[in-house]
Amino acid sequence: MKKYNIAVVGATGLVGSTILKIMEERKFPVEKLYILSSKKSAGSKLCFMGKEYVVEELNENSFDKPIDIVLFAAGGAVSEKYAPIAVEKGIKVVDNSSVFRMNKEVPLVIPEVNPEDIDWNRGIIANPNCSTIQSVLPLKPLHDNFKIKRIIYSTYQSVSGSGLRGLRDLEEGIVEFYPYQIQYNALPHIDSFLDNGYTKEEMKMIDETKKILHDDSIRITATTVRVPVKYAHSVSINIEFEKEFKLDEVYKLLEKFPGVILKDDVSNNVYPMAIDAEGHDEVYVGRIRRDFSLENGLNLWVVADNIRKGAATNAIQIAELVASKLK
Amino acid sequence: MKKYNIAVVGATGLVGSTILKIMEERKFPVEKLYILSSKKSAGSKLCFMGKEYVVEELNENSFDKPIDIVLFAAGGAVSEKYAPIAVEKGIKVVDNSSVFRMNKEVPLVIPEVNPEDIDWNRGIIANPNCSTIQSVLPLKPLHDNFKIKRIIYSTYQSVSGSGLRGLRDLEEGIVEFYPYQIQYNALPHIDSFLDNGYTKEEMKMIDETKKILHDDSIRITATTVRVPVKYAHSVSINIEFEKEFKLDEVYKLLEKFPGVILKDDVSNNVYPMAIDAEGHDEVYVGRIRRDFSLENGLNLWVVADNIRKGAATNAIQIAELVASKLK
Repeated sequence: MKKYNIAVVGATGLVGSTILKIMEERKFPVEKLYILSSKKSAGSKLCFMGKEYVVEELNENSFDKPIDIVLFAAGGAVSEKYAPIAVEKGIKVVDNSSVFRMNKEVPLVIPEVNPEDIDWNRGIIANPNCSTIQSVLPLKPLHDNFKIKRIIYSTYQSVSGSGLRGLRDLEEGIVEFYPYQIQYNALPHIDSFLDNGYTKEEMKMIDETKKILHDDSIRITATTVRVPVKYAHSVSINIEFEKEFKLDEVYKLLEKFPGVILKDDVSNNVYPMAIDAEGHDEVYVGRIRRDFSLENGLNLWVVADNIRKGAATNAIQIAELVASKLK
Repeated sequence: MKKYNIAVVGATGLVGSTILKIMEERKFPVEKLYILSSKKSAGSKLCFMGKEYVVEELNENSFDKPIDIVLFAAGGAVSEKYAPIAVEKGIKVVDNSSVFRMNKEVPLVIPEVNPEDIDWNRGIIANPNCSTIQSVLPLKPLHDNFKIKRIIYSTYQSVSGSGLRGLRDLEEGIVEFYPYQIQYNALPHIDSFLDNGYTKEEMKMIDETKKILHDDSIRITATTVRVPVKYAHSVSINIEFEKEFKLDEVYKLLEKFPGVILKDDVSNNVYPMAIDAEGHDEVYVGRIRRDFSLENGLNLWVVADNIRKGAATNAIQIAELVASKLK
């Protein structure tokens, strides 16, 4: 079996460290591993597959080494500066930040949804926004069969989406990272506000959904909200389809779609919950019911671990596809 | 000033005790006060306006006394059994439970929205569901001006909506009242499930909105969710209007509507939050922005103290109106 030289940028963060964990879990065929980070974390040691690695400082020469794939999980500014350098050296980049996602030359990929988009990459493949990944995954088979006209997203996002500092604000009941207390509160504010009144997070869900599904005709709106949950995002999704559907068909399509687990037996109190999704790679779908306010309306409740499928797992899945296509 | 003989049923619960507190705050003109409860709490003592009262056990003779208005806050079964007995004795009933709300002979009233409905009461006036009250209050002036075609509600409801037992599950991180852990979790399950896949709470929001606004043509769907917040519910409301609107008009209409406070200056991180609404009687509205996925679409984020405006304050406001019309 062919093995690959992999670099991970930002491996000391929440997503970066989970990337390493998931590479271990999935037995990613690693030949050499380079762990890169800011000056602050350089020199510290990390364990991978039972071997100790020293974290190296990321700099402009980091990509002179014979690296096949680099995964960036260190924020937009780092990706923006260093991803093009890696590409120039012929290294494939899987980027977790939002900076390249809407770039027309960069595929935005959920491997279960649009793996074929990887084929036209020019070096960078972008990993979508966490809430987008878990929403679009179950929407894909429904869109293919009933054509989505309109989506209304309302999210219930966990603090781990803000990394370790978000977790600290919640666990310690302090106000350091978020502008206000998150403990016992709900903040209708994720990422910064734009002139149109939406947050960047809301626009990411709107724009990225269309790009991944290759359909600009879908009309979408979103309200993204931070809630006092540690791990896993929940999304209330309201959908209007162009075509008629039967609930049975919806169940069947979701049941057989890869990466989706149906959790929908309300008479036995079975529905997706953040505490159940935590630590898992699948997207859980439940509360499936017709929206009677419309002819072809549907409501869903969708939950997934935002650090795993919403970030690290999806990035590794992309890396696996990229690796399989390397000469 | 005329004074009234008032009875409160369930005064040892969260809503009942807040009813007493708000009667004090608003200087409700009480002549005599009767505090009634189940056998369990009977005999305990409560303080009202600096005077001590002994809680009496509610029984079929409780309403033989010269009571003008009784407020019920002891759950549906108690209201169902005892409200008709009170009405028979000529006592006006303000009922917090859901049992009479959709009864065609019972007005369902938010005093700022449809005070005129009190006039056709036959003894019972129902207090709407907490999430419904805070949602319909700001929707009223918008419906009057732009005619609502469709509403999608997604709620973020606090545990105080389940009373003291809900608060205990959250504060102590235990699983006693809710079917699952509420701490660090989001439960898409409030009240029991119906055959159509919706919860009773969701159907309350759908049905009660139409009744209060006197418009069965409004198409509504809802997803109601319990979140780890102690006090105050938040609601993400998506609205489609029949008529065109300008955002300026929306701001002006909401600004001048009684009981509504605009909190919408996102460039300064000003938006409604549960921790700010706690302890207040107003409904806070923010994140007001056009829904670009529709011709006449609007998104709102609406927050209010569910125990106060969502229950006790609204009940007292109804009682004040009822009192003003007593001979």
